Amino acid sequence: MTGDRLAGAGPRAGGLDALLDPRSVALVGATERSAWSVNAHANLRRFSPHVRVHCVAPRGGVVHGQQAHVSLADLPEAIDLAYVMTPRETVPDMIRGAAAAGAKAVVVLTAGFGELADGGSHQQALVDAAHESGVVLLGPNGGGLLNLNDGVVAFGLHVPELPAAGPAAFVLHSGGLIKPVLSLCIAWGVGVAGVISSGNEAALTAAQLAAHQLEDDRVGAVGLFLETVRDPDEFRALAARAVALDKPIVALTVGRSEVAQRAAVAHTGALAGDAAATSAALAALGIIEVRSLEELVATTALLSRGFRPAGRRLGVVGASGGAGELLAERATDVGLTLPPLDEAARSALTEVLPDISSAQNPLDVTGIATSDPSLPLKALARLASGAERVFDALVFQAFVLPGDVTDPAFAAQQRERFAEIAAAVRDVPVPVVLQDPVSAPLSRLAREILATEGLIRVPGTEHGLAAVAHAATWVARSAELMHRKPPAPRAVTLDESLVGRALTEAEALDLVARAGVPVVPHVVARTADEAVAAAAGLGGPVAMKISSVDVQHKSDVGGVRLGVSGDEVVAAAYEEITGGVAAAQPDARLDGVLLAPMRSGGVELVVGVNRDAVWGPVLVLGLGGVFVEVFGDVALRPLPLGRADVLDMLAELRAAPLLRGARGTGPVDVEALVDAVLALADVAHALGDSLQSLEINPLRSHADGAEALDCLVVWRDPDLLNPHPQHGGDEA
Amino acid sequence: MTGDRLAGAGPRAGGLDALLDPRSVALVGATERSAWSVNAHANLRRFSPHVRVHCVAPRGGVVHGQQAHVSLADLPEAIDLAYVMTPRETVPDMIRGAAAAGAKAVVVLTAGFGELADGGSHQQALVDAAHESGVVLLGPNGGGLLNLNDGVVAFGLHVPELPAAGPAAFVLHSGGLIKPVLSLCIAWGVGVAGVISSGNEAALTAAQLAAHQLEDDRVGAVGLFLETVRDPDEFRALAARAVALDKPIVALTVGRSEVAQRAAVAHTGALAGDAAATSAALAALGIIEVRSLEELVATTALLSRGFRPAGRRLGVVGASGGAGELLAERATDVGLTLPPLDEAARSALTEVLPDISSAQNPLDVTGIATSDPSLPLKALARLASGAERVFDALVFQAFVLPGDVTDPAFAAQQRERFAEIAAAVRDVPVPVVLQDPVSAPLSRLAREILATEGLIRVPGTEHGLAAVAHAATWVARSAELMHRKPPAPRAVTLDESLVGRALTEAEALDLVARAGVPVVPHVVARTADEAVAAAAGLGGPVAMKISSVDVQHKSDVGGVRLGVSGDEVVAAAYEEITGGVAAAQPDARLDGVLLAPMRSGGVELVVGVNRDAVWGPVLVLGLGGVFVEVFGDVALRPLPLGRADVLDMLAELRAAPLLRGARGTGPVDVEALVDAVLALADVAHALGDSLQSLEINPLRSHADGAEALDCLVVWRDPDLLNPHPQHGGDEA
Repeated sequence: MTGDRLAGAGPRAGGLDALLDPRSVALVGATERSAWSVNAHANLRRFSPHVRVHCVAPRGGVVHGQQAHVSLADLPEAIDLAYVMTPRETVPDMIRGAAAAGAKAVVVLTAGFGELADGGSHQQALVDAAHESGVVLLGPNGGGLLNLNDGVVAFGLHVPELPAAGPAAFVLHSGGLIKPVLSLCIAWGVGVAGVISSGNEAALTAAQLAAHQLEDDRVGAVGLFLETVRDPDEFRALAARAVALDKPIVALTVGRSEVAQRAAVAHTGALAGDAAATSAALAALGIIEVRSLEELVATTALLSRGFRPAGRRLGVVGASGGAGELLAERATDVGLTLPPLDEAARSALTEVLPDISSAQNPLDVTGIATSDPSLPLKALARLASGAERVFDALVFQAFVLPGDVTDPAFAAQQRERFAEIAAAVRDVPVPVVLQDPVSAPLSRLAREILATEGLIRVPGTEHGLAAVAHAATWVARSAELMHRKPPAPRAVTLDESLVGRALTEAEALDLVARAGVPVVPHVVARTADEAVAAAAGLGGPVAMKISSVDVQHKSDVGGVRLGVSGDEVVAAAYEEITGGVAAAQPDARLDGVLLAPMRSGGVELVVGVNRDAVWGPVLVLGLGGVFVEVFGDVALRPLPLGRADVLDMLAELRAAPLLRGARGTGPVDVEALVDAVLALADVAHALGDSLQSLEINPLRSHADGAEALDCLVVWRDPDLLNPHPQHGGDEA
Repeated sequence: MTGDRLAGAGPRAGGLDALLDPRSVALVGATERSAWSVNAHANLRRFSPHVRVHCVAPRGGVVHGQQAHVSLADLPEAIDLAYVMTPRETVPDMIRGAAAAGAKAVVVLTAGFGELADGGSHQQALVDAAHESGVVLLGPNGGGLLNLNDGVVAFGLHVPELPAAGPAAFVLHSGGLIKPVLSLCIAWGVGVAGVISSGNEAALTAAQLAAHQLEDDRVGAVGLFLETVRDPDEFRALAARAVALDKPIVALTVGRSEVAQRAAVAHTGALAGDAAATSAALAALGIIEVRSLEELVATTALLSRGFRPAGRRLGVVGASGGAGELLAERATDVGLTLPPLDEAARSALTEVLPDISSAQNPLDVTGIATSDPSLPLKALARLASGAERVFDALVFQAFVLPGDVTDPAFAAQQRERFAEIAAAVRDVPVPVVLQDPVSAPLSRLAREILATEGLIRVPGTEHGLAAVAHAATWVARSAELMHRKPPAPRAVTLDESLVGRALTEAEALDLVARAGVPVVPHVVARTADEAVAAAAGLGGPVAMKISSVDVQHKSDVGGVRLGVSGDEVVAAAYEEITGGVAAAQPDARLDGVLLAPMRSGGVELVVGVNRDAVWGPVLVLGLGGVFVEVFGDVALRPLPLGRADVLDMLAELRAAPLLRGARGTGPVDVEALVDAVLALADVAHALGDSLQSLEINPLRSHADGAEALDCLVVWRDPDLLNPHPQHGGDEA
């Protein structure tokens, strides 16, 4: 279906232009009885002065105050866009009719398609109709679009007011969130390029629409609300283009992938849930992930304005101690720092500050600013000189609060004050952002003044600092991606006899060992005598485990003995293990007993590659045992990845200090550890689509190297069950 | 100073009434040149119609459009309240003058007192003047107060608009945050009783002001912004009263205690930082702690309206799939659940839902609600019957978005719609809250309609769900506190010879053992022969550690040997340990060598009591080693505490599964563990003010009991240094 979608009704410049900037629109299914129709008509009339609006209603007559046409064929002129609200079964014909009437684009508002369990065929009929007719299709189950730069509102909900036009674009899966996003943009004075709902994205996807927005010179950043990711390649391309253009993509994701059907047998399978895989994939692409609609709007707005701090060091000028303390605490939460002022800044400030203020960061010029509004500006000017030595951005706390301003003198005073702020900001060598303690709405006057002066502002401490932190992350990550050589997996030789069939533990170890993963020495003994010889050869006490593709829980059937030593004890253990398992699980095919030396010391990790239903193979890495099980302390990255990625992942783990010897064990050999992880990734890459999950648990990392103590392979064919899911702790 | 404050200028009903609801106010230091003065005068004139305003200006003349008086002695009538803006040095005289002019209360706006390093004596002069004069003193460095129920605004910043009067009261340390709080209340339609800044709280404290608000029948909840806690007893009394009245206290805290001067020698000392201790103390008192000003306002507002869900189960009715998914994810983040509908609800709903909607939780009635606004109401009605079986509260997503509404027909339609919603809500047997996907401001119309209909609403998904979760927490916690028998520490006998002097490890163990803490058997040998005999008596391999009050890092000076066995080896170890330490640290007083049996298995915990500078002794509990060091996985509670508190603390640990045997070790004896922790708390209680820190690390908990393997006592006298800070892992 992906192919169909792209081939049939994908983004063609002409179609998208007709969709986003039509001159003539037909409302198909116009009726006074539908609020959607009433609103869509009113919005076009009120907010789209350049658009000629036609109504198509089967019974004709006067609808929405104008003469309706009984069919698309009766329209007086060729249309660019049809906005279709007719019942589900009629929509394909309406699409064909619209195309015949000249339309290059169709918005389908009607619901009841792919979002329902039994709506797939109806949706395919839409796609087919669009494909045949050569029109671009937005929806169904969308709601429409607003293009504020060109003055087009093709949208079926009541809109009392629009935000100002500007550089922040939004594409949302959910049409129900268009108004909430608009309302935040209005409240916070965010300049908006457009808001588009892709609905079920039967044809045009959110990623395609975002990609189109990126190419618009008037757009500076795109914010996305994603209920699912259908085509990861589109996102990869979108993200790459965003980096190339320095136009960030910001995303709020919810829900689970519609196609996730994973046998989460391995630990890492369960850990690398769809949401975690999506987060890891977006981060790797440089897409900024946010946690709320407020953070989506605040971050997209800030980034769309070109706010690009070179790092995470903030200087703060304010006039409230409480607001400054609050900011300082929240800055820490989002990984921003407030470094102390240098000596030059301190002495420069001391000259202008009142006695009751002290030169520090965050700076509180005190309430004297109320009577002397020039005070914070003087402080800003003093900080400006050499600011780039200490800070990557300055925050200027300029309380712009709501409430209608009716006093013209007060309004004039405010205009003057902000003109002065703008002048002061221009002299600062690092980006400056205005900020209020809270995300309360701006007055009309404040919005107008900020726009006039070109000042950048973030809404409140919480959302504002999150946005600033995301901006710093974007700057670092996009630079990295820009200069990054894409990692190339090393070609490895696979033992083809081991691919695609249920494997014993020994076979799984052999599979990865061939590709360079260091594994524990091991022998599969088929008799007690062989076991005795193997134990002697391995030396020291051994671990003995039943070798079978059929035994799922080795310990439960007496299939595991640890720390076995002495010929007689080994021989007896062999007989007891095989006998016990045969009695407990008579149908199991027994392959003998695996022997390996007991290991201790070092740090145990879990390293796995899991195939995510959307993003493909994802590497999951964590410290073994309680770290993964209790704290969920894991790092994820989609393949392919390189040495630097693995090092980053290790650093991300909260348990990372243990690798450096925090518990008195001495540092592990990180290079050997990374080699082992990369070798595992290479095996996963070589196994390609046949692999569901490949996991080493534990991978013992120590001062002199790394070693896989157990390995598990799960193929995508669900008939090949996990041969030995019990793992971890066996060698403890 | 606390005593002075309470005795001298504490809350007396008369004084507080004069402060909060004066009939006659003098602005002292009135001048056109100060914006504070201009604003304070304008606010009183505009928003305080019942208040007569007098200006006092040394030069007389016309100020703020009225004849000023040259001194307080010249006022034409007795005043209730003086609002003082004169220079710092003059303020004490102004307080005396105000009292002579009849004032029972004084607000001091002037800054430059206790907030400065050298401002203490100036502040004391204010307190003394208030004390002598018998007036209530608010500030200095405050900003004033708004009492909306009585129509009093004594506040020096420009206020373009006020929120509606209502049940949410706020008391803020920072006057700079009054306007931000007001602006959120306006935007979200929060009904406000008052907003008061306590400033430096030289006399009246935030806790005293909050306590006064609680007694006002028109107040339903009080929100606090706290920069510090000066008097914990006031907060204990406030919190108890809040529980008794079912009027929640909500608090946002920042910064660090002004009096924190702790020698953070022990692990738990460093972990139980002031912020953590304050959070633990507030939680134990039932005070709801929030993380942002937005959450403070949203939570105080919701709780002030009497929203009291019996539990954490939410049902959701909405008309946007995206908004519902977002809500479901965030609900999980704050510990709310969205249980599935029961069969009765499903079939009842199916009768009214359109084909394209399915009966589930969260419920999306789909965009058909746009054309049929009765649909969500029908769904709500169907859910109402028996809702209490499945849900503790319902969320009704009713998008009330901003923008001026000028169309009277639309306004009438909205009034009708919300009247219907209100009628439907009344039939639901659990609390119902309206919610928007975002925290955008309400239109004037929406605010008016919600107030008229008495509907309860939360602002947005993020802040709204946090508020709902806090409401559920309040219901549970306040019920618990209401019925809780205050825990009484058990009296324990102390070996007084061990109190207040530097202790060896053995002595510290003996100190807690006497009080019933089970400790590992141990012997201090003074000769090699004694060591051999002791080892034989203990049996098995032993741990040997230098016994000295002077050795800080035992391992570093060769003072520790583990797993020692055999007479000759023990004897040699004795000589090597004592000889080695004597060589490395010649001045150390050596007491011999402590011997104890080696232990393994079980789960190791760290348990300590630390004296917080504000809150007094606080118990800190965590699993030993990496859990504390890497993950900071600890639980804190102020003393005194009981068995249920310790069980709660254990359950709070993320590593709690390990106590239940998650790593295959079998569950530990939790009762024995709790006994040991309570015994330690009893010792700390008995030691009283002399104790800085008492810590057992590790406390080994296993299937058959618990046992302290090391103990550390730090006295408050800083000259008595920690005798043996190295601990943890010695017995590993």
